[in-house]
Amino acid sequence: MFEALKGIKILDLTSVVVGPVATWRLSQYGAEVIKIEHPTGDLMRGLGGKSPSGQHSGTYLHLNRGKRNLCLDLKSPQANSITEKLIDWCDVVIANMRPDALERLGLGPKAIQSKHPEKIYCLISGYGTEGPYAGLPTYDSVLQGVSGIAGLSQLRDGKPAYVPMLICDHVVGEITSAAIMAAIIDRFKTGKGAFVEVPMFETMATFVLQEHLAQKSFEPPVGPVGDLRLLSPHNQPVKTKDGYISFTINTDPQVQAFLKATDRSELLKDPRFQSIASRAEFVSEWFEVRGAALMSRTTEEWLITLRAVDIPAMPCHTIDTLIKDPHLNQVNLMSSENHPVEGKTVVIRSSIKNNGEYAPVNSFAQPKGHDTLPILKELGYSEKEIAEIIETKAAYTYEV
Amino acid sequence: MFEALKGIKILDLTSVVVGPVATWRLSQYGAEVIKIEHPTGDLMRGLGGKSPSGQHSGTYLHLNRGKRNLCLDLKSPQANSITEKLIDWCDVVIANMRPDALERLGLGPKAIQSKHPEKIYCLISGYGTEGPYAGLPTYDSVLQGVSGIAGLSQLRDGKPAYVPMLICDHVVGEITSAAIMAAIIDRFKTGKGAFVEVPMFETMATFVLQEHLAQKSFEPPVGPVGDLRLLSPHNQPVKTKDGYISFTINTDPQVQAFLKATDRSELLKDPRFQSIASRAEFVSEWFEVRGAALMSRTTEEWLITLRAVDIPAMPCHTIDTLIKDPHLNQVNLMSSENHPVEGKTVVIRSSIKNNGEYAPVNSFAQPKGHDTLPILKELGYSEKEIAEIIETKAAYTYEV
Repeated sequence: MFEALKGIKILDLTSVVVGPVATWRLSQYGAEVIKIEHPTGDLMRGLGGKSPSGQHSGTYLHLNRGKRNLCLDLKSPQANSITEKLIDWCDVVIANMRPDALERLGLGPKAIQSKHPEKIYCLISGYGTEGPYAGLPTYDSVLQGVSGIAGLSQLRDGKPAYVPMLICDHVVGEITSAAIMAAIIDRFKTGKGAFVEVPMFETMATFVLQEHLAQKSFEPPVGPVGDLRLLSPHNQPVKTKDGYISFTINTDPQVQAFLKATDRSELLKDPRFQSIASRAEFVSEWFEVRGAALMSRTTEEWLITLRAVDIPAMPCHTIDTLIKDPHLNQVNLMSSENHPVEGKTVVIRSSIKNNGEYAPVNSFAQPKGHDTLPILKELGYSEKEIAEIIETKAAYTYEV
Repeated sequence: MFEALKGIKILDLTSVVVGPVATWRLSQYGAEVIKIEHPTGDLMRGLGGKSPSGQHSGTYLHLNRGKRNLCLDLKSPQANSITEKLIDWCDVVIANMRPDALERLGLGPKAIQSKHPEKIYCLISGYGTEGPYAGLPTYDSVLQGVSGIAGLSQLRDGKPAYVPMLICDHVVGEITSAAIMAAIIDRFKTGKGAFVEVPMFETMATFVLQEHLAQKSFEPPVGPVGDLRLLSPHNQPVKTKDGYISFTINTDPQVQAFLKATDRSELLKDPRFQSIASRAEFVSEWFEVRGAALMSRTTEEWLITLRAVDIPAMPCHTIDTLIKDPHLNQVNLMSSENHPVEGKTVVIRSSIKNNGEYAPVNSFAQPKGHDTLPILKELGYSEKEIAEIIETKAAYTYEV
């Protein structure tokens, strides 16, 4: 079994989405994660949708697999000795609280790294520690706005629109898991920890600008910003007799094959569609031809026709058709298990294979405080001390 | 300087976007990357937009920094001995060609790993090697369709829409960089290589379903699929007197402060807006209140008002306003340099800080074949042999 991060211990002070994505991914590679949860509970337990008990939304369940759960009030004076022991225990601390809040709790990067230079400390923040937005709080949709993702739709459709996903949280979470692994590699080589800062705005602005600075990547600019193919209003899934289909035609032979398959042979010699460069120049006209009603046949029929001429094509799924997709079902992307609180739930596994095997399906997302007692015991507290800690409400334990 | 991957050598057989994103990220952490480019050129040189010479689109420039460029016709018989030497040289091979094409070239995972069990081999594919879609070719928009990303807009707006970015390529590229780093960590511990497979469809389906399986994460389902907050048509940037603003209100105190700041005090005790749960139930009504015309003041005025009551808010940027954002300018996300072919170009640096420093700005994206001669020399070929290789058109060198 491939467990690259086996033995790597992560103290997870994050909540909601961006941090939990990062630690979910690290747990998939074998890291041991202790999630610290505030007594009021991770916001995503409720915000991420309904569940039978109201305690574990689907999103919460999927992003918090493979983590033990210690419910701790970090502001309680009794919590200090617990966090000190946890910091001794861990290799990596990861937080997405505002830096000033971390400082107040004595859990800021300087406090920890001055005492423990071998620890990796990863801080995900909205806007970093420099510049006019430094320290400001944020949410995913605010980041979609400020990083230009919503504005891409304004360039295409005339008004801005959010991607209906927590795309910034999710993307930055994945990027953060890589950043932490880079620091782990560095520590293997040097024995030293690192302070890894991931400012979400800059990260997403980079992500967007790499594609869409485009013609303004040159001084003077050679045209407007934006990848004009992607910003064409015609670059959309195409309606068929019974749904929508997604296909893309890039190469000249594909264009010729498409024109024949769709009975547009009169355009075969049209100079506007003869090369990548000319199609880029006449992108609207080209996408109009491309998108012109495929209404005469079903998606399934078009898939056969288009694939026969080597044009990549797939059904354009909604979530309801996605979960019935024959490919996903055959590779068993989803399975089911019993959750002690929510009953029968769906498990989504990681998609990455190492040496022919998917990562093991880790334990389900734990109820709040599920592992408080065993973790405190492992940290060396006696049963009497644990009872006192619970009594003072520094820590909470899950009760059925 | 933090260079976690210094000394890690990567043979980059990828092109277009998903692979180049992964190797760009690895180069940011210090890896040494040799990009093998086909004599016809990476499609993204032209597809990614205009450039003064037509040879280095903005997207190409941004995703190919920090890589040396060896222009090689892998199908040429003379290329075999060169790739053998490159495989000896490298620690990691990464490819996003179709598996059957790699096999034909003798560059498939089995061929390489049976001879070199210590090498890491990463294969990014559209649909993996099992299931009905195995081996099919794909493009970003096709993946957006089949993974449900485009269909999310259908749930929200009544018709599917692509995110106007190469979002699947870009996201999977970042996830792949982490997967490779996990394999590097494993090799530090075991001395063994690994075969890392990243099927793009499954990876993006996981990415989408973690958020949007939602109420169907339970058996029986507790409601429809989808995070209903995100799928509300009202969950959009809000028009102001002079543009659009992005803000999010999650907590009860933020709701109360917002209602006061926007002169909607009559709703302060409205039971529909009293808790996260009740706002989730009345999500349309809540977003209607939230989105109701902020037309009376400018974005800048609302930013001051909303931030004063601790509501995260930012301007909703287009790409043109993003590049003028005062924060990005103050932290110098972009700088400029001279490219030998394209003249003055904009550099976008990585956003991640290690120990207080951003990764160094690596060398610019190279012209095709820029490093053919020195690389062949480093591999041990004599000047005479190199001349012969060029003569037979197995390799090409850049000529000004």
